[in-house]
Amino acid sequence: MSMYEPLKGFRDFYPDEMEARREVIDTIESVVRRYGFREIGTPALEPAALFIDKSGPEIVEELYSFTDKGGRDVVLTPELTPTVARMVAANHQAMSKPIKWYSTRAFWRYEEPQQARFREFYQTNIDIFGSSEPEATAEILACCGDLLTALGLADDDFEFRVSHRDILSELVEWIDADADTGEAIRAIDRTDRATHAETVTELVDAGLDEADADRIVTLLEDASSDLDILIDETDHPSLHDAIEQLIAVLDATRDYGVREHCSISLTTARGLDYYTGVVFECFDTQGEVGRSIFGGGRYDDLIEGLGGPSMPAVGVAPGLAPITQLLKRADVWPVEAQETDYYILVVGDTRAVAAQIARQLRGEGYVVENDVMDRSFGSQLEYADSINAKTTIIVGERDLAEGMITVKDMETGEQTQEPVDAFLK
Amino acid sequence: MSMYEPLKGFRDFYPDEMEARREVIDTIESVVRRYGFREIGTPALEPAALFIDKSGPEIVEELYSFTDKGGRDVVLTPELTPTVARMVAANHQAMSKPIKWYSTRAFWRYEEPQQARFREFYQTNIDIFGSSEPEATAEILACCGDLLTALGLADDDFEFRVSHRDILSELVEWIDADADTGEAIRAIDRTDRATHAETVTELVDAGLDEADADRIVTLLEDASSDLDILIDETDHPSLHDAIEQLIAVLDATRDYGVREHCSISLTTARGLDYYTGVVFECFDTQGEVGRSIFGGGRYDDLIEGLGGPSMPAVGVAPGLAPITQLLKRADVWPVEAQETDYYILVVGDTRAVAAQIARQLRGEGYVVENDVMDRSFGSQLEYADSINAKTTIIVGERDLAEGMITVKDMETGEQTQEPVDAFLK
Repeated sequence: MSMYEPLKGFRDFYPDEMEARREVIDTIESVVRRYGFREIGTPALEPAALFIDKSGPEIVEELYSFTDKGGRDVVLTPELTPTVARMVAANHQAMSKPIKWYSTRAFWRYEEPQQARFREFYQTNIDIFGSSEPEATAEILACCGDLLTALGLADDDFEFRVSHRDILSELVEWIDADADTGEAIRAIDRTDRATHAETVTELVDAGLDEADADRIVTLLEDASSDLDILIDETDHPSLHDAIEQLIAVLDATRDYGVREHCSISLTTARGLDYYTGVVFECFDTQGEVGRSIFGGGRYDDLIEGLGGPSMPAVGVAPGLAPITQLLKRADVWPVEAQETDYYILVVGDTRAVAAQIARQLRGEGYVVENDVMDRSFGSQLEYADSINAKTTIIVGERDLAEGMITVKDMETGEQTQEPVDAFLK
Repeated sequence: MSMYEPLKGFRDFYPDEMEARREVIDTIESVVRRYGFREIGTPALEPAALFIDKSGPEIVEELYSFTDKGGRDVVLTPELTPTVARMVAANHQAMSKPIKWYSTRAFWRYEEPQQARFREFYQTNIDIFGSSEPEATAEILACCGDLLTALGLADDDFEFRVSHRDILSELVEWIDADADTGEAIRAIDRTDRATHAETVTELVDAGLDEADADRIVTLLEDASSDLDILIDETDHPSLHDAIEQLIAVLDATRDYGVREHCSISLTTARGLDYYTGVVFECFDTQGEVGRSIFGGGRYDDLIEGLGGPSMPAVGVAPGLAPITQLLKRADVWPVEAQETDYYILVVGDTRAVAAQIARQLRGEGYVVENDVMDRSFGSQLEYADSINAKTTIIVGERDLAEGMITVKDMETGEQTQEPVDAFLK
């Protein structure tokens, strides 16, 4: 038993679990790369100002922040967006648009750990800069759909609830310009799965009169299957703009093959203030993972707000912890086990030949282990078993005198003698 | 121009450079995995005590250390060894031996940045726990040799200078038990490429008499080609133990196919105090990269010293920055360029078909981009060029009316018409 422990909210990953995590990360990244997203590398530590200027000074309370030995106020980065904004701002003139970037790495927040929330957490950031077209948002959604499918999820395991962050507020404003829009939206948020009447009551509590409240709830219900109704029944240009942007994205998702995964959910309004247009959240269709798996959307003002050029942007950042929850719920989390193609078992003075066979097989791309413990036959076989070796090659002195080795299939236990030359090309 | 900069000693990696770095990391990790090393994941932040107990309180001055919001003294990890020691200690009973772990990640030190040294730096840690046999050290060396070769280096681009950390000190002690061993070793270190006479002078300055000094230098010269001489000409059991351990490792490197990369260099004594036996450093044979590329060796006491079980260990941690220097010196650093298999160019109202072709090709594993900017023919072609697309597929309305698309080879400029069905299986 060690006298040391990892810090609260930080995790050690041992090989079995890491093998599964690596498989998931590799799958996600391979899909993302096929969409033409390019990997970037970014610092773990940034000037605190980069985050304070984006989110206000109170953000520091939720971060690992400190003053470094040179007197700089720094933070362990809680998210990637300010960093990529900085990088885009510094070099955008030299780069062709769209700029499509991804990266997978750890981030840190000083928050109370809870289920699937850690102080150190991993996510893959996927962003497109320089396009304000609906195709860019549709591509992000299509990429998310593809990567979840590639992870083994079925079409009915997940859905993207798509919205536009202005629709709710513009609708409330059009119905009753004097209403407290924020309070009304929170009322609707609270009643995500409530009945019509319950939501009306909440809205009345939020200060709307009953007829207006009823009208909002009815319109939202109708619009969730057909957004045109919301255009036909209202007369408010900024509301219509938002609806039309959402319709354009949904039309593009049809062409991009991801429309079937998208549902209209006008009450989805991502918490982050920097979103500017169409937003979405991925949910477990079965509801077992209660919270949003991940979210994303358009943030057209942020780069400029952080001192950069005017630069539309859309992105998403799936986190490994909630994805793990979803994959386990759907029973498609990879097997947590190490895999080994060959164990080379040394009997007697055969180390040179055994090592040569190992080299040969590694050169062919196999995962190969051999004895580095000077152990007995039995102990070596036990170890081969413990690392899930598919095949053990037994290199014995007597066999070798006749130019032979023994190949043991570790699953069936079947053994065959083969000429050693077959393994020394 | 942005108002923000990365912190001093921290780096942003844009896609072109990152593509090359990723290729290098992938190559290293693929070789390491074939040796049966298993990936682990580890925290960026650890309790400061873990490092103070290993290296003394003064280490904190070189680290990013701070007190977190819960009052814990923490550090951004400057190296992996204490963390893996902690992990081994916590779970060694459940794990079969040898424990073979690797991981690639960033570490942090608050030091003055200089050429190829950064405050945030990346390295791949490769360790074997549980074996004190020479084969374990030989396997680490063989793995290093293979990964450097896999990176494109020629046999004469690099060498491993192998030593045993006790040989020098035991030799000095045997020659003159009253000499200041530390001072004598530093004298020898300082004169790494000096003449015989210069080294003798340094040793005399360090307090040895001239005959003893001359004898040490002669023995070291002779031993570098034949360690047996050092055994024959001395009579000091603990010196002989160290020499025999070194000989055993060198013998094993012969069987493991890496002996040709190893030279005996008894003046190589890795700076880190925790090494206990055979140590080595990788050098640029051409000497252009002046410093050691990376080093490693046996550290049999550290796990126990950190509160764990008695557990022999041997490891190495190649850093990406010095490896980059060596690969560039040898002119085998990967091309820093993005690669794209297909760009799908949309002309007119063909988005749905273009997107379907993109989906099909991505499903076959290709890197594919299409228009998310609503751009003209010429702008799209320019963009396809900027992302180094090998092939552009032009999906035009008129072509499509006849069931055809145009395939343009971006290198030759050659265009052929093909049936669209060939891309929609």
